[in-house]
Amino acid sequence: MLSRARIKFIKSLQLKKYRKEEQCFVVEGTKGIHELITSGYETVLVAGTPEFLEAMPRVPAGVEVIGTTQAVLNSIGKFQSNDAGLAVAKMKANERLAVEPAEFVLALDTIRDPGNLGTIIRIADWFAVRKIIASQDTTDFYNGKVIQASMGSFTRVSIYYCSLKAFLQSVTLPVFVTASDGANVHEMAFGDSGVIVIGNESRGVSTEASPLVTKKIGIPRYGKAESLNAAMATGIVLDNMRRSQKKP
Amino acid sequence: MLSRARIKFIKSLQLKKYRKEEQCFVVEGTKGIHELITSGYETVLVAGTPEFLEAMPRVPAGVEVIGTTQAVLNSIGKFQSNDAGLAVAKMKANERLAVEPAEFVLALDTIRDPGNLGTIIRIADWFAVRKIIASQDTTDFYNGKVIQASMGSFTRVSIYYCSLKAFLQSVTLPVFVTASDGANVHEMAFGDSGVIVIGNESRGVSTEASPLVTKKIGIPRYGKAESLNAAMATGIVLDNMRRSQKKP
Repeated sequence: MLSRARIKFIKSLQLKKYRKEEQCFVVEGTKGIHELITSGYETVLVAGTPEFLEAMPRVPAGVEVIGTTQAVLNSIGKFQSNDAGLAVAKMKANERLAVEPAEFVLALDTIRDPGNLGTIIRIADWFAVRKIIASQDTTDFYNGKVIQASMGSFTRVSIYYCSLKAFLQSVTLPVFVTASDGANVHEMAFGDSGVIVIGNESRGVSTEASPLVTKKIGIPRYGKAESLNAAMATGIVLDNMRRSQKKP
Repeated sequence: MLSRARIKFIKSLQLKKYRKEEQCFVVEGTKGIHELITSGYETVLVAGTPEFLEAMPRVPAGVEVIGTTQAVLNSIGKFQSNDAGLAVAKMKANERLAVEPAEFVLALDTIRDPGNLGTIIRIADWFAVRKIIASQDTTDFYNGKVIQASMGSFTRVSIYYCSLKAFLQSVTLPVFVTASDGANVHEMAFGDSGVIVIGNESRGVSTEASPLVTKKIGIPRYGKAESLNAAMATGIVLDNMRRSQKKP
């Protein structure tokens, strides 16, 4: 049974303030929990219905496993789902991520929408981009909606929050950004390493990061939509980046 | 001033049942309303703060324009925004859409999430795909979240709800679908016309539509994410489709 104190603790993790204090976050849903358990994250506890726990892969030693009911889960969780389980895990430290030779990384410039961030993490994982640098005001990686939208990909993509300006000044790699006046992405030679900056959903790339961009990429528009969603633009750019390199 | 009856009427349009009865839907936010007014849709009324109405483009004759307050708008609208206006417009009839020579259309097979449908409409508009065929159980085009997520593109993309099986049986064009075992989209010759089927978010393409597919498309995966979001897959396929044709 989940004690009242536990329920209160899990619920408190919906707020960034308490996640920071406890250095813990919540994962909901079968897919996310299964990926969590076999990942490099330290899982603290898993709570679920008997059926859910039955169907779980082997849990590492030290992880508390607690049986509960769907009704209790519904009262704690943030998402509607029939998945019938949730887990609490330890956050990873915010450590500087080095860009290796022959590596592309993403740099997020004030991505505010948790759904967008989760989708960006998922698409980064699809295209084997394993590192995300994020401006301090980018939404929290450990927000429940981000974790949910990443569909388990949060386990394979690392994030580092920092001053984007300082980060971009510190690298000698090409710095790409999507822009309406950029060179056609279909014809771009991406090379084998670089930083791809994704601008804010409505304001685009910031005045701080803008002067540090070395290559502007344009996604050709054939119709009349004024802009592309930030996550969508990321997906299309990464597909073209991989396409300009060798085959998978 | 917005009368109580009007407020009740506008609120009722949040439900599909009342939208169907009244054949009306709501558009929130500056961008959507500005696009609505200059589109082929018949606008019934626009309500907004004095500042919002001041900044509006010329409204066609016959459209009722009503001044109101931010507080009233917040109590009626579904979305948080500082946009300070909403509009009511007439739905278009559900009419069969013919596929012209040299045209690509989308066929949605049970897309359930309104945010996904709105994003698909927006990306279709970006790539000049003007027609969407949708299975009867695809979410409602006139749902407020769909209209919102389409960012005004709902004015340029038409939809036709029908039996997807019957529609696919009636066309002689190539029928594409994304599939994990499909041919590499980077190497696909799309030709100049066809139907691109987008499967359900979790179950993919239905057993009804599946036998009618003539070409399977695979989006190369370089990393470990299990799948792509339906809207994201649509965007990547459309970018590759346009790329395989001539330049914009």
